[in-house]
Amino acid sequence: MRLVSGRYTNGMEAELIHWLRDNVPRFGKADISIGDDAAVLPVINSRTAITTDTLMDGVHFLATELSLEDIGYKAMAVNVSDLAAMAAEPVAAVVSLTIPRSMQLAEIQQLYEGMFKISRRFQIEIVGGDTNRWAGPLTIAITVFGKERGTSFWTRSDAKAGDIILVTGPLGGSLLRRHFSFLPRVDEAAYLQDNYNVHAATDITDGLARDLANIIEASQCGAVLDCDCIPVSNDARELAKSSGRTPLDHAMNDGEDFELLFTTSAEESKRMLVDPKLDVVVIGRCTDDRQLRQRDGNGIEQVLERGGYQH
Amino acid sequence: MRLVSGRYTNGMEAELIHWLRDNVPRFGKADISIGDDAAVLPVINSRTAITTDTLMDGVHFLATELSLEDIGYKAMAVNVSDLAAMAAEPVAAVVSLTIPRSMQLAEIQQLYEGMFKISRRFQIEIVGGDTNRWAGPLTIAITVFGKERGTSFWTRSDAKAGDIILVTGPLGGSLLRRHFSFLPRVDEAAYLQDNYNVHAATDITDGLARDLANIIEASQCGAVLDCDCIPVSNDARELAKSSGRTPLDHAMNDGEDFELLFTTSAEESKRMLVDPKLDVVVIGRCTDDRQLRQRDGNGIEQVLERGGYQH
Repeated sequence: MRLVSGRYTNGMEAELIHWLRDNVPRFGKADISIGDDAAVLPVINSRTAITTDTLMDGVHFLATELSLEDIGYKAMAVNVSDLAAMAAEPVAAVVSLTIPRSMQLAEIQQLYEGMFKISRRFQIEIVGGDTNRWAGPLTIAITVFGKERGTSFWTRSDAKAGDIILVTGPLGGSLLRRHFSFLPRVDEAAYLQDNYNVHAATDITDGLARDLANIIEASQCGAVLDCDCIPVSNDARELAKSSGRTPLDHAMNDGEDFELLFTTSAEESKRMLVDPKLDVVVIGRCTDDRQLRQRDGNGIEQVLERGGYQH
Repeated sequence: MRLVSGRYTNGMEAELIHWLRDNVPRFGKADISIGDDAAVLPVINSRTAITTDTLMDGVHFLATELSLEDIGYKAMAVNVSDLAAMAAEPVAAVVSLTIPRSMQLAEIQQLYEGMFKISRRFQIEIVGGDTNRWAGPLTIAITVFGKERGTSFWTRSDAKAGDIILVTGPLGGSLLRRHFSFLPRVDEAAYLQDNYNVHAATDITDGLARDLANIIEASQCGAVLDCDCIPVSNDARELAKSSGRTPLDHAMNDGEDFELLFTTSAEESKRMLVDPKLDVVVIGRCTDDRQLRQRDGNGIEQVLERGGYQH
């Protein structure tokens, strides 16, 4: 592990390393941090959750449309959102960057400043990484580590027929702004895990319909979504004015909402709905078949085909 | 964490995921592996070492010159070598790929087969990752996790004045073949840690001179290398025939040897040299100044300037 390497010697590596050593937010989460062959985390006496996601210029974002700080923020946030989906407490991260040759030191620092925002908010220590320059585009591969808070991590595979399905916030149209400014639902996951018995959970990245399909596939059950109950964001309504799609279609399929999507028993869901510290919405229930269906306001049900979800 | 994602839908994702689920070597190292928002490792009751390195086409390898299996092998091996340099026992890995659009499923499988070779050799479980296609070149970002074997991980910062400096094998000319076929020194590190008191250690990636400079900088001491003692590989001699450089220059500066470079007390080094299970070579000693020097056969010393090391 070399935090900064690369096949050039214009002094930027040394400057970047020194800047990182001085500026990376630290929370005492590592015994050995930046500067050795590997970072060392202390014994944590719980299981470890690990997740990794790469954001690539031209695929997951356009460097010409987002600020570098927003890109760095998002790259860290999408990974932390995966930990929230497991109810893991984020601890540390490593960051691998491929940097276009034209990028200046100040720009790389902006990218890191975006990551630091998430670092500081959730006390996640960046303990190392790898930085290389090349002729290609910017990519950011982040791996984050979390520890177990309560009795167990949430998985996608623990939904049961009869479970109630909930989400933590409005969906759709994240492309307008939320996809680079959302706050991962770490605190909501922690509160839910401390106070309730959540069965299955994930975060909404590919869209409600697809992510719910992942849960029912992993849990070997089915689900019915109540279209009238799905919280549609103002952004979805805004986008629908020009997209030719309905606001509900946006809410069902846009993705990158990064809200928690989870299931729990009917009794637990009733408690949740009257909890003033929680802001969750019931959107459907799990069934004992293997189908994913949506029900409209007239009670008419329609099967959602996996893969498409175009309505 | 989505093991396979991407903005295309030609069925390759599903096929690749199924192939990976069926073919990833498993060693019971994970409670939750491929398929959830994060992987989960069980409680390990020791500190964790974490390292990450990215290999990029056109920077660290040329996809036109190496086979995909060799590229995959090397990408995993360089990371495992970093764990060996800490005397960590490798446990698990996550793999993030950026895949050129033209790459076929069979080619991605070859890449993984190369990684699996290292996986199987050291029982390292690939527990997740992220795969995305794009118009850009192949990159492989791997993060590996290791646990503590003995009393403590080795670091770069524990060399002491008077220490003897050793390496585990011949150096230089790795470009001819060893850079993609080397075996990370995991077993050697384990044996050394179980039977000896190693002070500082690293693996030789940037070249003996640079990597030793890292050790003495971190340890705040100096070092003298005995040029006559440095084990020069046959590959270094071979390359020197056409490079206009000396075999010793290659051994000092080529890098990518992935041998262990470490220091220990004079007493321990004597024991090591007569241990039939060890194949290590004394190449110098640590001093109480802050200089890195080389001494030739006539006892003439010369200071090695940091950064250059051109001889």
